[in-house]
Amino acid sequence: MEVMKVLHMNKGDGETSYANNSAVQGKIITTAKPVIEEAILGILCETFPESIGIADLGCSSGPNSLLVLSEIIDIIHAKCRNLGRPSPEFRVSLNDLPGNDFNSIFESLPAFFKKQKQEKGIGFGRCYISGVAGSFYDRLFPDKSLHFVHSSSSLHWLSQVPPALESNATPAALNKGKIYISKSSPQCVLDAYSLQFQNNFLIFLKSRAAEMIAGGRMVLSLMGRRSIDPTTEESCYQWELLAQALMSLVTERLIEEEKLDSFNAPYYAPCPEELKMSIQKEGSFIIDRLGHFEIDWDGGVEELTNTTLLPLSRGQRVAKTVRAVVESMFELHFGKGIMDLLFARYAEMVDDYLSKNRAKYINLVISIIKKDN
Amino acid sequence: MEVMKVLHMNKGDGETSYANNSAVQGKIITTAKPVIEEAILGILCETFPESIGIADLGCSSGPNSLLVLSEIIDIIHAKCRNLGRPSPEFRVSLNDLPGNDFNSIFESLPAFFKKQKQEKGIGFGRCYISGVAGSFYDRLFPDKSLHFVHSSSSLHWLSQVPPALESNATPAALNKGKIYISKSSPQCVLDAYSLQFQNNFLIFLKSRAAEMIAGGRMVLSLMGRRSIDPTTEESCYQWELLAQALMSLVTERLIEEEKLDSFNAPYYAPCPEELKMSIQKEGSFIIDRLGHFEIDWDGGVEELTNTTLLPLSRGQRVAKTVRAVVESMFELHFGKGIMDLLFARYAEMVDDYLSKNRAKYINLVISIIKKDN
Repeated sequence: MEVMKVLHMNKGDGETSYANNSAVQGKIITTAKPVIEEAILGILCETFPESIGIADLGCSSGPNSLLVLSEIIDIIHAKCRNLGRPSPEFRVSLNDLPGNDFNSIFESLPAFFKKQKQEKGIGFGRCYISGVAGSFYDRLFPDKSLHFVHSSSSLHWLSQVPPALESNATPAALNKGKIYISKSSPQCVLDAYSLQFQNNFLIFLKSRAAEMIAGGRMVLSLMGRRSIDPTTEESCYQWELLAQALMSLVTERLIEEEKLDSFNAPYYAPCPEELKMSIQKEGSFIIDRLGHFEIDWDGGVEELTNTTLLPLSRGQRVAKTVRAVVESMFELHFGKGIMDLLFARYAEMVDDYLSKNRAKYINLVISIIKKDN
Repeated sequence: MEVMKVLHMNKGDGETSYANNSAVQGKIITTAKPVIEEAILGILCETFPESIGIADLGCSSGPNSLLVLSEIIDIIHAKCRNLGRPSPEFRVSLNDLPGNDFNSIFESLPAFFKKQKQEKGIGFGRCYISGVAGSFYDRLFPDKSLHFVHSSSSLHWLSQVPPALESNATPAALNKGKIYISKSSPQCVLDAYSLQFQNNFLIFLKSRAAEMIAGGRMVLSLMGRRSIDPTTEESCYQWELLAQALMSLVTERLIEEEKLDSFNAPYYAPCPEELKMSIQKEGSFIIDRLGHFEIDWDGGVEELTNTTLLPLSRGQRVAKTVRAVVESMFELHFGKGIMDLLFARYAEMVDDYLSKNRAKYINLVISIIKKDN
């Protein structure tokens, strides 16, 4: 499966859209804000560029797409006001895969600019925003054009399912009935996922190293785990429950067993040591900060959604969040017709799980600095 | 009417989409290719940049969006091969209003890159394409970042209907039953249109002057007229027929007369002297070439479209071309329900007109060079 063609958040602004179901990812951005602030002030402390190149990788669409950018502009604008100097020119690139809903981002730009000008008045510097469609596991920007790179809730997506699992040579035998890593996955499956992540992350770092100026900084937050053990529940249990929901539909003969066996999620939740190892191996960056924080599966969001008058259960909210992200991929493999039932079943299983367990996503956040040479 | 919000080509790839009804605009691009080639070779002759900034303004969507870019890359690539030097890095910005269908451009990029690499092999330099949503009657790009700017079939669209025609003070009295300039338009209407064009074009030139490097070149092609007289048939008769089609629906009480009276097209087809005057007034550019060419109303395209098995009449083809461009605007003013009927009526009137007249669009094409200071 080429992820590039099928992985995109649900488009539009309907009930199952990512725009209406991305509160968790929004919370992650807000939580990581102090790390972003520290990194940007670090850049401004070294040199004060007249024109600052910024990229957000995996910007998605909906309210989160311009959230980070707002934060970044606010931080720089406040610093400039403190120093009594004019804002720099902002050159901003919003990146995601070609299937992303860039139209909706672009349609929201006039209101975004209006708000910035209202808030900041004439002190608001020129701001040029462009959309860049392509995989961040490849070069995206000209040499040495970026001062600050950000990516949130994106780097846990692999460029592809590990090749060992994709070959037609009885992949079912490898990870039967699973769609990601679990306690019962054979070692070769665990190794294949870890290797795929490391290969991807290495290319990611190499590409950004060429695109960033010396002293430039990058803040990345992504799903991860604290333990070295990749089968720890905190890194994969949302997938395990989704596999169980699929399995229940296999039992009811609504999904073919082979369909389930041949599906593997192009996803990996690394541990901090894996990030550290890749960064050291690539060699262009210094680690400034590496930590993690926890986010409730439903982002702790308790409000009613604006598309229903009935309050949703926690399981339903989690299911909507997951659906908005993975549906494009699942639909292609299992068919459009089964999606409503699948995610209803998933919601029940999540509710059941949450009634007995405390469930949090672990988010790794890392801030790194581009070396001088 | 704020054109920015309502002017966009018909989206998608259906029967009335711009993607399927833009052969005329494609022909215009192809016809202007020698002028583009001359300008680009002019740039490469002066200096040979390692990284070349290119912008296409009003790129629209569909097959034409990447057509100019293909031509530009081909020209530069061939020149480099001749000189035995590597291709420069291409930094390409595709611009249109925020309502443009950028998603479909981005979705076509992987195939575009694949084709370029297949054709040009390892000699194909890095090429970074970004989408920039905004009005070209404003700044769009950072200072001195562009070597070559192109715009085709776009600059005849004004940023707004001339304010004198938009005010609520009895605009109907000014241009009654017309939607653009005609022989019976009062002088104040003709002046208002000409002034709006000049104001817009001046801001366009000023913005580009800041964005382009000295020696950078710009090739613009747009609908125009040869005569000084703005009411010449060649500049406005397609609008006159559309007004007649609307009028026939007013007579049948399917459209209110006030609706027709209060509609004015944000369009102006200038004469070469007007372009020259604005360029001299702005002062940052030297005119290298200024000419015009003729294009049949239906682009001389005789093939069947791929969405119908019945051959279309010339009038029907012209109506589809015009509809793909203006429908978003017309729909907003006259209502979605009347569109099919309006353009069917228009097709009949065009067929009738073409049976008695030879009808060509006049396209002005101008190539200008950014001065040194």
